[in-house]
Amino acid sequence: MRENLLKKAWAEGRATINGWLAIPSSFSAEVMAQMGWDSLTVDMQHGVVDYQTMVTMLQAVSTTAAVPLVRVPWREPGIIMKSLDAGAYGIICPMINSRAECEEFVAACRYPPKGNRSFGPIRAFIYGGPDYPVHANDHVLTIAMIETTEALAALDEILAVPGLDAIYVGPADLANSMGKPPGFDQEEPSVVEAIRTIVAAAKRHGVRAGLHCGAPAYAKKAIGWGFDFTTLLSDARLMTMKGQEIVAAMRDRPAPGAGGTY
Amino acid sequence: MRENLLKKAWAEGRATINGWLAIPSSFSAEVMAQMGWDSLTVDMQHGVVDYQTMVTMLQAVSTTAAVPLVRVPWREPGIIMKSLDAGAYGIICPMINSRAECEEFVAACRYPPKGNRSFGPIRAFIYGGPDYPVHANDHVLTIAMIETTEALAALDEILAVPGLDAIYVGPADLANSMGKPPGFDQEEPSVVEAIRTIVAAAKRHGVRAGLHCGAPAYAKKAIGWGFDFTTLLSDARLMTMKGQEIVAAMRDRPAPGAGGTY
Amino acid sequence: MRENLLKKAWAEGRATINGWLAIPSSFSAEVMAQMGWDSLTVDMQHGVVDYQTMVTMLQAVSTTAAVPLVRVPWREPGIIMKSLDAGAYGIICPMINSRAECEEFVAACRYPPKGNRSFGPIRAFIYGGPDYPVHANDHVLTIAMIETTEALAALDEILAVPGLDAIYVGPADLANSMGKPPGFDQEEPSVVEAIRTIVAAAKRHGVRAGLHCGAPAYAKKAIGWGFDFTTLLSDARLMTMKGQEIVAAMRDRPAPGAGGTY
Amino acid sequence: MRENLLKKAWAEGRATINGWLAIPSSFSAEVMAQMGWDSLTVDMQHGVVDYQTMVTMLQAVSTTAAVPLVRVPWREPGIIMKSLDAGAYGIICPMINSRAECEEFVAACRYPPKGNRSFGPIRAFIYGGPDYPVHANDHVLTIAMIETTEALAALDEILAVPGLDAIYVGPADLANSMGKPPGFDQEEPSVVEAIRTIVAAAKRHGVRAGLHCGAPAYAKKAIGWGFDFTTLLSDARLMTMKGQEIVAAMRDRPAPGAGGTY
Amino acid sequence: MRENLLKKAWAEGRATINGWLAIPSSFSAEVMAQMGWDSLTVDMQHGVVDYQTMVTMLQAVSTTAAVPLVRVPWREPGIIMKSLDAGAYGIICPMINSRAECEEFVAACRYPPKGNRSFGPIRAFIYGGPDYPVHANDHVLTIAMIETTEALAALDEILAVPGLDAIYVGPADLANSMGKPPGFDQEEPSVVEAIRTIVAAAKRHGVRAGLHCGAPAYAKKAIGWGFDFTTLLSDARLMTMKGQEIVAAMRDRPAPGAGGTY
Amino acid sequence: MRENLLKKAWAEGRATINGWLAIPSSFSAEVMAQMGWDSLTVDMQHGVVDYQTMVTMLQAVSTTAAVPLVRVPWREPGIIMKSLDAGAYGIICPMINSRAECEEFVAACRYPPKGNRSFGPIRAFIYGGPDYPVHANDHVLTIAMIETTEALAALDEILAVPGLDAIYVGPADLANSMGKPPGFDQEEPSVVEAIRTIVAAAKRHGVRAGLHCGAPAYAKKAIGWGFDFTTLLSDARLMTMKGQEIVAAMRDRPAPGAGGTY
Repeated sequence: MRENLLKKAWAEGRATINGWLAIPSSFSAEVMAQMGWDSLTVDMQHGVVDYQTMVTMLQAVSTTAAVPLVRVPWREPGIIMKSLDAGAYGIICPMINSRAECEEFVAACRYPPKGNRSFGPIRAFIYGGPDYPVHANDHVLTIAMIETTEALAALDEILAVPGLDAIYVGPADLANSMGKPPGFDQEEPSVVEAIRTIVAAAKRHGVRAGLHCGAPAYAKKAIGWGFDFTTLLSDARLMTMKGQEIVAAMRDRPAPGAGGTY
Repeated sequence: MRENLLKKAWAEGRATINGWLAIPSSFSAEVMAQMGWDSLTVDMQHGVVDYQTMVTMLQAVSTTAAVPLVRVPWREPGIIMKSLDAGAYGIICPMINSRAECEEFVAACRYPPKGNRSFGPIRAFIYGGPDYPVHANDHVLTIAMIETTEALAALDEILAVPGLDAIYVGPADLANSMGKPPGFDQEEPSVVEAIRTIVAAAKRHGVRAGLHCGAPAYAKKAIGWGFDFTTLLSDARLMTMKGQEIVAAMRDRPAPGAGGTY
Repeated sequence: MRENLLKKAWAEGRATINGWLAIPSSFSAEVMAQMGWDSLTVDMQHGVVDYQTMVTMLQAVSTTAAVPLVRVPWREPGIIMKSLDAGAYGIICPMINSRAECEEFVAACRYPPKGNRSFGPIRAFIYGGPDYPVHANDHVLTIAMIETTEALAALDEILAVPGLDAIYVGPADLANSMGKPPGFDQEEPSVVEAIRTIVAAAKRHGVRAGLHCGAPAYAKKAIGWGFDFTTLLSDARLMTMKGQEIVAAMRDRPAPGAGGTY
Repeated sequence: MRENLLKKAWAEGRATINGWLAIPSSFSAEVMAQMGWDSLTVDMQHGVVDYQTMVTMLQAVSTTAAVPLVRVPWREPGIIMKSLDAGAYGIICPMINSRAECEEFVAACRYPPKGNRSFGPIRAFIYGGPDYPVHANDHVLTIAMIETTEALAALDEILAVPGLDAIYVGPADLANSMGKPPGFDQEEPSVVEAIRTIVAAAKRHGVRAGLHCGAPAYAKKAIGWGFDFTTLLSDARLMTMKGQEIVAAMRDRPAPGAGGTY
Repeated sequence: MRENLLKKAWAEGRATINGWLAIPSSFSAEVMAQMGWDSLTVDMQHGVVDYQTMVTMLQAVSTTAAVPLVRVPWREPGIIMKSLDAGAYGIICPMINSRAECEEFVAACRYPPKGNRSFGPIRAFIYGGPDYPVHANDHVLTIAMIETTEALAALDEILAVPGLDAIYVGPADLANSMGKPPGFDQEEPSVVEAIRTIVAAAKRHGVRAGLHCGAPAYAKKAIGWGFDFTTLLSDARLMTMKGQEIVAAMRDRPAPGAGGTY
Repeated sequence: MRENLLKKAWAEGRATINGWLAIPSSFSAEVMAQMGWDSLTVDMQHGVVDYQTMVTMLQAVSTTAAVPLVRVPWREPGIIMKSLDAGAYGIICPMINSRAECEEFVAACRYPPKGNRSFGPIRAFIYGGPDYPVHANDHVLTIAMIETTEALAALDEILAVPGLDAIYVGPADLANSMGKPPGFDQEEPSVVEAIRTIVAAAKRHGVRAGLHCGAPAYAKKAIGWGFDFTTLLSDARLMTMKGQEIVAAMRDRPAPGAGGTY
């Protein structure tokens, strides 16, 4: 089976960077896959992406070595299993708030006897190789989102669930849940403390941790705190940031034919 | 009929900036339409976009005041007329190399007696208004690409075609055709001279001129030479440039938990 | 944030009319959006529409002032939140039969502390404006369908759920549930009584009410009973009704060349 | 090979009615196919439909006995042949203005030795049957649009082209070309005369004739003049007409709870 | 209402064969529908198919007499009801492990008072006929998958659920659940015994039984055990098997121009 | 630039085998790409595939080493260039009947000064590498179809066109054009002679030759005659052949429960 390069990098003590796909297009996915991200996540929760388009995006990512991940819209076995069958090498599941929810999520990602994933890895066979059924339980990453005060309260119970590979912090939801303004790259002390509490707990349990970030400086700081991987922005945000820069830079354009100092 | 804001701006002596859509997605088109471009061109020639997707992109652009343009794949009446029926307020036609080609192109954009455009403005009625048929000939922009040595040789004949509103310079093809390396923002003297010759000729004939550029500095220089509008990059290029910046900025990331100066 | 014009109309004592989109096409959606409906609902339950197509339909509706609503297939947080993120200004949720179900539905539509909606309004930011996160809880309509005898029995409990903006009566399901033939514009006394009971209860609780109708006469009668909004038919039904009229009118066509009295 | 029911009806002296598909959706196509039209035309010229969607629409039509036709965007062999391979039982080709254009069109629809259609009837085999290659030249309808003054001037030459089955009059383009306002159901005397001239000439040459109409009364009048088939409106127009009726009928709706005479 | 030919065949003591659609394309579905299968199942669980594509596949199947079935991704009322509304004449539901789960599944497929299916058979009206609402409860097949040890333990309780028409054995999941290697055409004695136990129990309860098979020999053996229908492979597997045969047969191809014994 | 493995194989004296994609699906394309074909051709002429779908199919093929080719619908520069920009490593162009047509075709595939291909290799950059513009003229295969008596008569003139890499024989069209029944694997002596004449002429001109075949035995025979590559059937035909085998093998199935010799 094709190796999961994220597990390899983390085992070697390297932090990985994750790109984020919210635009429903296999072409933009392939463009993103050329940039050097270690992994790319198709976001079916807040991204504008549904299953049928997602598959073509996983195919596009598969033309490169970037590890394909999927964030599912919700903790629902149908879409979790369909995403794995489509060749996702890891599932990010939103809003895991209790041990039971985490167990349910992990079970949906694992073949018996470790879980109840149904058998039919139609494209995973192609992407992973013919021995996928034998090794999938060891390669597919289960990544639970910790993003509410409820989850904070159940942190150790969640982290103790067997088969949980990693947690992922959504800072916007976490802040919102704590009564603070949503957003990336939180500087609000209580939210920062919560984030650091989460990553520290994950480390104690031998669980990997990831954080969604808005800028490299913050992402590097977070890695310094212990995060194993960080996402930076998204395809749509990258496009917007550079587009806004360009449009702003054109504000002082001359009138046609004005010539001059340009 | 809804006014063509490009014609208005140019009449007022203002240069406009054009965004470029190569990603086949109505969502990325709508994101681009939020950035402040005066117009947005769906590129059906070198962009990864076909007619059916293009219509949804025009719809997305129509949620804003940005003027929707389409670059057709080739000088073929079927796709020119379909694009206009879909509500494009201007057509950029590649590879216009002679007076005859230019006449054929312009005719496909104009209702009789000025041309042979077939009647059926199915979505143009919605976008333009119920009096679209009466005024379309005055509002829809015909924009011929001048991008070969052959076109350079026929420049005055092309520019003299009645009903031609603007020309558009593709610097990559023009350079290629002149035996120089293709690319935006040409500094190769012979290509620069050709570009300046084209814009000067256009001005003489009362025809507007546009240029595809890669950076604001060059775009402003080109406007100084007389160009009425410039395109800057494309959705995919914007995304790539910012993505590469971010990935590069993450190269010196620490190991997880290294903490330190961040 | 862009105002929700339905709330405004209702506050001003005006009944609104809602169009219904069952055809999976952004073009037919845009055609429907030109007719003067106050709101348009993309029906993901019984309409032939899935999420990816729905987004393009919301974009098409967004070219006009019609308020975009979505009926979700079921009370499932994933699709409710995705629809809101896509810019729906209200969610119609089928089969709300108890207080608990209503609370769960409303929670999925509200950011903390009023609910548990996850943060990521990717297209809602574009449609609603940059201050969407601050005001969304006040603008997004929660509309619970009351359409079973079970719901009738729990009516007051359902209507008392904080944050519930409106209820919507599906007369076909309601009749079916009562053992009567399904269909719009019910004249069956027991069903009419149930409908009037529902709208009266809604009024008592300060909750708005809507009804799916098949003809203007019935819709106006229902508004007279107290309904704040009525849906009339659907895109597919409108097309069918007029198409059947035309085909019927052609039945007595002559033979080719028969000439005669025409 | 499945019989072409249009040829049968015409041979029996019956006029047929044709529905028109401009909405890009296999579902709306199937809804239209339920109404009793003798044939349905997927309009790839002025309709919002591209090849890939068109195929699904032909499939939807194939669930019924309605004869599937396609109007191609332009006289281009590639799309004519692709449409036939997809199972169209007739091609309506716009803007046939000369004998040469008509010959080129007919040739693209006929296998050698009668034409140069390339062999590969991938879905036509399914729709028509395994003997499609042997009989296709006899069953597939070639329908040339006569819609310009240029075509009027070449009428007899066009009608004399061997293999031409029918002509189709586009009254909007015809009027436009004659300097009259475009539109269906022309009452402008010169346009009416031109239309009657065309149908009379077709009859002389043993060529069938069709007309695009806006109302049954006019369509029946046209059949009386000799037309063998008439189109009435389109899916989008049907929807719009009934929708506008409904919205208008709701204008005098009461305020919620006003009760009263309803 | 259009008869369900599977029920008819089974009542007449005939076993039926089912084709399996995993490729997301209405064209491949139509090709499959030409081969003589009694029924065709669109697999939304392990197939690469989502709702919007599935509808076009049901349309393609509807051009023939093959009975259209859908396997849903999970026991979720929304997608079960949407599939039925789209015209599926039977639902295969994965992972039914208890009486309660079976009751919930059956209820979602039945109109009141036998269940809680919501009313709105938008395309089922077209496929089934105008009396669909009256007869749907009698024609639509409910097919529960028995594929875990948990289900084996609850076999009689599951089979006793009123309204359950058939069970379907997924041998790969069943084997996996029993700690045996997954795969079709099991020869592992304990799995074979479990399969035979299931079919025998179904017969006792008057419930039909189906099995997913990989080869005709095994399928015929299974029918001999009592199975009423068997699936054989899938569209993608058929393509792969023949493709691999062809590629293998070309391994000993000569060098170009080698001529020789061919 | 990524090497064109077909050119390499041919230079090494090896014949290659080509798979054929007519189903419009990136998933079926990826399944086909797993079987060991040296190249895969997306057939936009007789296949049910349009540009937008074709791009996703090229992406799917790009996950493997199979060389991606495209057959365009017709000799039209727009689609030829779009296909190359999408990353096709070769274009098969139908119906090349004269030197002029062949020159036009080749020119559309070559950047100046060897042709007039427009510059904008948006996905070809990704697939081929950043130096694609420099080397594309040497790597992209131009493959002209010889399939009419007209082409036979102009054979040497066509084969002498500079830049023509290969010819491809469509035996169905060739036979049809010669007044013989269309079909693969021709045994009709005059057609066989024509085919052998073509391949011999190609060899004389140093041009590669390919043939569309229906069975390995014939394909190997053709290679023996000198063909450098052969296509075998298509995705849809492979599926059909195996499906028909399976359905036929099930004809003698027992009645349910008949038990017996199985």
